[in-house]
Formats: sequence, C-alpha cells, structure tokens
Amino acid sequence: MIKQITIFGVGLIGGSLAMALNKAGFCEKIVGCSRNREHLQQAVELGVIDQFTTDPRLAVENADLIFLSVPLGAMASILTQIKDYIPKHAIITDGGSAKMSVKQAAEQAFDGKLPRNFVLGHPIAGREKSGVGAAIVNLYQDRKVILTPVTDTNTEALTTVTKMWQTTGAIVETLNVEEHDLTLAATSHLPHVLAYELISTLAQSDVSEDIFRYTAGGFQDFTRIASSDPVMWRDICLENRDAILTMLDEFTDNLQVLRKDIADSNAEAIYEEFSLAKDARDQAMRHR
Amino acid sequence: MIKQITIFGVGLIGGSLAMALNKAGFCEKIVGCSRNREHLQQAVELGVIDQFTTDPRLAVENADLIFLSVPLGAMASILTQIKDYIPKHAIITDGGSAKMSVKQAAEQAFDGKLPRNFVLGHPIAGREKSGVGAAIVNLYQDRKVILTPVTDTNTEALTTVTKMWQTTGAIVETLNVEEHDLTLAATSHLPHVLAYELISTLAQSDVSEDIFRYTAGGFQDFTRIASSDPVMWRDICLENRDAILTMLDEFTDNLQVLRKDIADSNAEAIYEEFSLAKDARDQAMRHR
Repeated sequence: MIKQITIFGVGLIGGSLAMALNKAGFCEKIVGCSRNREHLQQAVELGVIDQFTTDPRLAVENADLIFLSVPLGAMASILTQIKDYIPKHAIITDGGSAKMSVKQAAEQAFDGKLPRNFVLGHPIAGREKSGVGAAIVNLYQDRKVILTPVTDTNTEALTTVTKMWQTTGAIVETLNVEEHDLTLAATSHLPHVLAYELISTLAQSDVSEDIFRYTAGGFQDFTRIASSDPVMWRDICLENRDAILTMLDEFTDNLQVLRKDIADSNAEAIYEEFSLAKDARDQAMRHR
Repeated sequence: MIKQITIFGVGLIGGSLAMALNKAGFCEKIVGCSRNREHLQQAVELGVIDQFTTDPRLAVENADLIFLSVPLGAMASILTQIKDYIPKHAIITDGGSAKMSVKQAAEQAFDGKLPRNFVLGHPIAGREKSGVGAAIVNLYQDRKVILTPVTDTNTEALTTVTKMWQTTGAIVETLNVEEHDLTLAATSHLPHVLAYELISTLAQSDVSEDIFRYTAGGFQDFTRIASSDPVMWRDICLENRDAILTMLDEFTDNLQVLRKDIADSNAEAIYEEFSLAKDARDQAMRHR
C-alpha cells in the first residue's frame, strides 16, 4: 500500500508525475525534495506536491516509494545520502535517460549491488521547457515508459512501478539495460548530437553572412532539439557515452557510404538509400 | 509589359506562383506546359492556369516571361526544345534548388552562354505534399526568394522577376551562384541527407526490435524531412554535388571533434559546443 511518495527533483518530469498521481489518487501524500527551497515552495503553491523538505534523509524516512528525477550526475550522491534512511519496504525508481549509468550509481551507493527494490525506469516524454512551471498533468498520457529490470529485481516492486506509470496514462514496456541505452542513443541522443553539430557547423561556416536568414520550415523542425538544455545533454553524452559512440560510428559509416555515392554521382544508390529511409519513416509514423 | 507567362511544370511551386500572380492580376494570361495532359487539365479546372499545351514550342511562342519549375535534370532538355521559339524580348527564370546546375544547363542549351534575359532564381518555400493539388495562393507570403544574377544579367529582366516575386508576398534577395549553392547545401541539402541517413541507420540497426516504437516528438520533428520525395532529393544531390560534399565534409570534421570529446569525457568541451549551438539557434529563430 503506497501512502507516501517522495520525489527528488520536482521539475518537468518529477512535477508532471506528481500531478498525474495526485489527480488519480494513487497515494495519500507526495513529498518533494531538492536543494532549492524556492522551487519546492513554488511546487507546493502550484499544488504539484503536498509538502517538501530540503533534507534528503527526512524526505525518505516515511516513504513507500522514492522517485529520482535528478540529473544523471547527481544520482550517486543522492543515493549515498539516503541509503541508510530508506525504509526496508520502500521501492526506489528513477527517470534517468541512461540506465547503465543509474545502475552503476546505485551499485556504487549500495555497496556494489543494485537493491532488489530498485526498478530502473525512463519515461520517453519531455517538452522544450523545463522546471516545475512547465509540468503538466497529462505529460505521460499515451507516452512510452521503458522499465529496465535486472535478473533479481523484486517482482512486486516492478508491478507497483508499472501500475504507477499506467496510472499516468503511459504505456509501460521493458527492455534490458543495454538495449535501452543503445535504443535511446539511436532514437534520441544521436539526433540531439547531430542537430547541435549541424547548427555549430553553420554558425562557424563562412559560406554566407547570416546564413540562418535562408532557412525554411524544414530546417526549423530539424534543429528544434538543438535548443535543448546543453547541461542536460552534456550529462547524457557523459553518462551514455559508449552507446552513443556505438550509434555515432554506425551513423558515420553509413554517411561515408552515401558520401561516396554522391561523389560518384551514383544516382541509383542515392535513390535507394533515400527511398528506404522515406519508406521506413512513413511506416514507423503510421503505426504510432 | 507582361501579358503572357508560361510555366513549365505546374506542380506545387509553379502552381502556387500562378495562383498568386493570377490573384494579383500580374499578367493577362498564364499558360501551363508539361508532358502530363491530365495534370494540366486539373490545373485549369482548379483555376491555377488559364490554358495549357503539352507542346513546349507552342507554349513559349507568345510568352513574355517563362518560368521553369521542372526537375533539375530536365532543365537542359526543355531549354534545348524551346530555345529557337522564345520571343527575343521574353524573360526566362526558374525555381531550381541548385543554381550552378541550372546555369550550366542553360549554357549547354544556348551555345555556351547564359542568355542575358535569363534570371536564375530559387524560392525558399515548400510543403510536404507536392503536385498542383497542393498548390496554395500564399505559399510565398513572407518567404525568401533568392535570385542569383550573373555579371551581365539584363537589369530590366532582373527588375521584372524581382517584382513578380514581390507580387506573391515574397522577400527577394540576391546571392551569387556559388554562395547560393553552398548556403542551400548547408541549410537545406545537408539536413535532408542527415535525416535520411539517420532513419536508414536505425532501420538497418539490430539494436532493438521495432526501434521506431521508442521515438518521441523530438525525433518526429527531426526526421520529418526524411519523408520528402527521394527522386527530388536524389536529383539535388546529383546537381549540387560539390557544394553538398563541401558542407558534408565540414560537418563530418566537426562531428569527429565532438566524438573525440565524448570519448574523452571532456565535459567542458561538450558543454561549450552544445551551448554555442543552442545560442546560435535561439538567436537565429528570434530574428526570423
């Protein structure tokens, strides 16, 4: 029975979860915790959380479920601070974008072993804005949440976390940790890297003065993700490094094949490549 | 005085131009020409053009201005067919995405020299849909049109073509041919190549079954242009090859620097790169 949920990091992700769970009456009380008292006060005033504390130990001592939505680089530190104060029955879960990174942070904090009650997870949702002011009650409606249980993850804990996300309207799926990290490197992290790098290339190019004057709608859509928070994406590059490098190298190899086809004016090969891509995208978007 | 305009290729680009010019009363008559009688009949029924012929020579014999919106690969052939039938006073202009390619096609057709009445141009506008059914009267409203006159382009011809585009609500600017081709390679052609290649990489990757299930809104925006017509984009790669390769290599070099920064976990360098890109994009979009 979930009475109290404690959320570390009450921004877009943690705040939107709190709002959806509150609305559904999933628990009796939601406690927020972070280092920023003003943000937490704002979250209470917005009705996102019921109460707050800036003391991690106080935050968890009566918690039945703990949700971590702090930056990837802060996971190990938070877990180390709270490990001795977490009730035995409490379930821990998180929303980090790189699961091996969180798994290792937890192992580091918990003497080399991921607790059986720790259910690694990642909601595939977001907005351009961030912070609790951007939180919305239906952020997770019809969105995918990927859970990445390990061999001895407690089944009841997995069931509870699954139910929690389903309560928000999300579609819950499971992948293993490595699959998750490669999949997200491919579908999210690599696109961000490419968008940032395209803008950077254009900004530094001496092709034409004020080159961005000549961009059209397709360019705006293509580069929208390059307006994302550079701190968050730096951390993702650091914390999902190996998977990102794997996908980046696969992409670069393919790009070099296409480069040769263009240099050779190989019309048929270029057409086949573009045609394959268009068909794959059109089909993928149709089934969403 | 422009009485008759003849448009070769009455699809999205040519059709939208005809609609805007008709509405503004820019000329007395618009004649469409292509190989497809059904499409031309449809264009007349939609009120896009006044009359049509499938005979290029008949199409131009009374034209005061000729607009070519056929595929880049068809420019030389059309120009060769009509060259001996174009009235001396008639202005020729086009909407091709690669200006050196059109310039060379025209030189090839006109005995090695671009006619002084030929004003090379390129409207930076489009939609995902194509064909005359997708044509809209305000396609060019507030859009950029780049004209790329050469040294001895006739000034009156340039003025008339400028006025024609301004009549549609477009903002007319000039670049030289090489600048145009590099700029568009950077802001349009390279993004399309990257989007196609990302989708192709994911479609061929064995990372996770049905990898597109795990994509979110950012991915959909980023890859929208990969649903573009592969024939058109193959032709652009063939016809603007050198400029695309130049920009592709600049991009690849930058990407390799970033790859090294990620591999080295160089947090500061990654942050600076992403931050530069975010600032450049935010500023560019603010000034649009």
